[in-house]
Amino acid sequence: MEDHIQFDIAEHALLLLDQRLLPNRESHVACRNVGDIVTALKTMVVRGAPAIGVTAAWGCVLALQDVLTRKDGTDWRAAFNTELDRIAGARPTAVNLRWAVERMRAVAQTFQGSAAELLPRLEKEARTIHQEDIAICKALGRAGADCIPDNSTVLTHCNAGALATAGYGTALGVIRAAREQGKKVRVIADETRPFLQGARLTAWELKEDGIEVTVACDNACALLMQKGMVDCVVVGADRIAANGDSANKIGTFGVAILAQHFGIPFYIAAPLSTIDLATPTGAGIPIEERPYDEVATLNNLRICPEDVPAYNFAFDVTPAHLITGIITEQGVLRQPYKESIATAFAKASSR
Amino acid sequence: MEDHIQFDIAEHALLLLDQRLLPNRESHVACRNVGDIVTALKTMVVRGAPAIGVTAAWGCVLALQDVLTRKDGTDWRAAFNTELDRIAGARPTAVNLRWAVERMRAVAQTFQGSAAELLPRLEKEARTIHQEDIAICKALGRAGADCIPDNSTVLTHCNAGALATAGYGTALGVIRAAREQGKKVRVIADETRPFLQGARLTAWELKEDGIEVTVACDNACALLMQKGMVDCVVVGADRIAANGDSANKIGTFGVAILAQHFGIPFYIAAPLSTIDLATPTGAGIPIEERPYDEVATLNNLRICPEDVPAYNFAFDVTPAHLITGIITEQGVLRQPYKESIATAFAKASSR
Repeated sequence: MEDHIQFDIAEHALLLLDQRLLPNRESHVACRNVGDIVTALKTMVVRGAPAIGVTAAWGCVLALQDVLTRKDGTDWRAAFNTELDRIAGARPTAVNLRWAVERMRAVAQTFQGSAAELLPRLEKEARTIHQEDIAICKALGRAGADCIPDNSTVLTHCNAGALATAGYGTALGVIRAAREQGKKVRVIADETRPFLQGARLTAWELKEDGIEVTVACDNACALLMQKGMVDCVVVGADRIAANGDSANKIGTFGVAILAQHFGIPFYIAAPLSTIDLATPTGAGIPIEERPYDEVATLNNLRICPEDVPAYNFAFDVTPAHLITGIITEQGVLRQPYKESIATAFAKASSR
Repeated sequence: MEDHIQFDIAEHALLLLDQRLLPNRESHVACRNVGDIVTALKTMVVRGAPAIGVTAAWGCVLALQDVLTRKDGTDWRAAFNTELDRIAGARPTAVNLRWAVERMRAVAQTFQGSAAELLPRLEKEARTIHQEDIAICKALGRAGADCIPDNSTVLTHCNAGALATAGYGTALGVIRAAREQGKKVRVIADETRPFLQGARLTAWELKEDGIEVTVACDNACALLMQKGMVDCVVVGADRIAANGDSANKIGTFGVAILAQHFGIPFYIAAPLSTIDLATPTGAGIPIEERPYDEVATLNNLRICPEDVPAYNFAFDVTPAHLITGIITEQGVLRQPYKESIATAFAKASSR
């Protein structure tokens, strides 16, 4: 499942497995320009903070290809930067999107040659981001595997798996690594309304991997915890503030409160690229509101009556004090997160 | 909306508005015998504890009609009781089902005449149960209206409305009564997976009544409460134990924990017929598990991949200590519930 994001150099296209159609159909969308990339991000052909970052990196390559074909005599650097801003603005919450675009932009800014000479250099950087993401997930998985008891059931919300990254996954990477250590791990996948990432994506990729998974409606969480059916919770994140407050898919915050109520450990699993040191607390994280129809209809069936509005906040922020640990490629960070996050960044940059 | 359960004497049929098809289609199912009633209850053509009770009462009339047409010479009383047991066994959690059947059975048991003579007596008792249910909802609504602040937003889970009763509703009856007092009340309807009673039924009947309602996915509850968008929670119940522990639609327990976390009042609204003095605590309430396909598919679209199991517990039990008050036709009961419930029953039986 490391091929759901594939760059085809011959075709000048990024091929994305269309996650909207899973588990019923495996079909790819070809993105040939920045417009395609922005649409794919906005409509959630691809989603998940690290996967959004990797897609954005390849999108920057397509941006330069766009610019190269223009014969209008405008400054290619200015045009390129405008395209990059379009990509960075596609979705507001996941910081990995901006992080990847700025990393690609930095390569261009320090490059002295022509646009045509820059292209292979950008392709190389995108490939590095892509491959690093898989390596980081694997390191993160190994670091977090000790948090998972043997013969246990892990509840996860949304999809923080191979499909949310370049491969292997963050939360599901931890579960995969625990299993590679020889532990028996079962998973409860919250279905995760309205987009059903848990029922459609997490269940699908765990089943493909032969990991035991059972789907539950989001509202069953309290009962399952009360019954002793959940040993720990591991979820991903879309943006982590410098103090550890963590934005993730809507519903995560509720799961964290329930976990605290029942004394169940609650972990966030995310690469350092998801931590935004420029955002001091969760209050500074923008929460995307998505289209009404995602909630009000399903498979063209109206769920809500006509003219009845619906909320569709896509994320919520779990305050740091509810988080048992933040699992990163630099190890499992513990409270107080301001300190442990700063230390992890120092360790990473000293490499 | 007091005609969603209608007995047609000429046709010997109970006409039920098919709640599975709302809000997209208003269509009735005609139940002509006990088999039809059991199917309608099991498949949730009609649902909601008080509405199940009223349907069961009319089902007992159909049971006697069934028995009357038999010419096999068997004892009609034995045959009638067997049919009543079938109705009572249709669903396990809502105590109103058993309560209504036993009330109808008691009429038959004390009746001295023939089966044919019993029929109009049973019809009268069913009509009484039906009409009492509406009157009780209105009394309950008036009793609870003071719990709703003026200019407030009430979050409700599932549908405890006119459609869940013979009319007017329990939780929604409280909201209707508050509005009749001249208060401005807005409602947030949890969509209530998997059957979507909130999005489909609560939103529909409130819209019909001109009460402002917004739908939210179940997992948005923590965010909405954190944002200060919820002033109180009012929900129904399917069975309340003698100590106040309250079984209601799956997800209610989670909402109650979140309400406690945010210091938001949490009310149960239910008639005394929902309180089961024979069940000392919530641990004794059976939790129905419903079919897999209710979770795994929607409008014939698979949500879960093939071969991935899903939990479908239909109810959970909110412990009494999380409940701010239990709103009944005998007033708002407060902790400790064992005492206030006993007092309410004494008051009701002394009338």
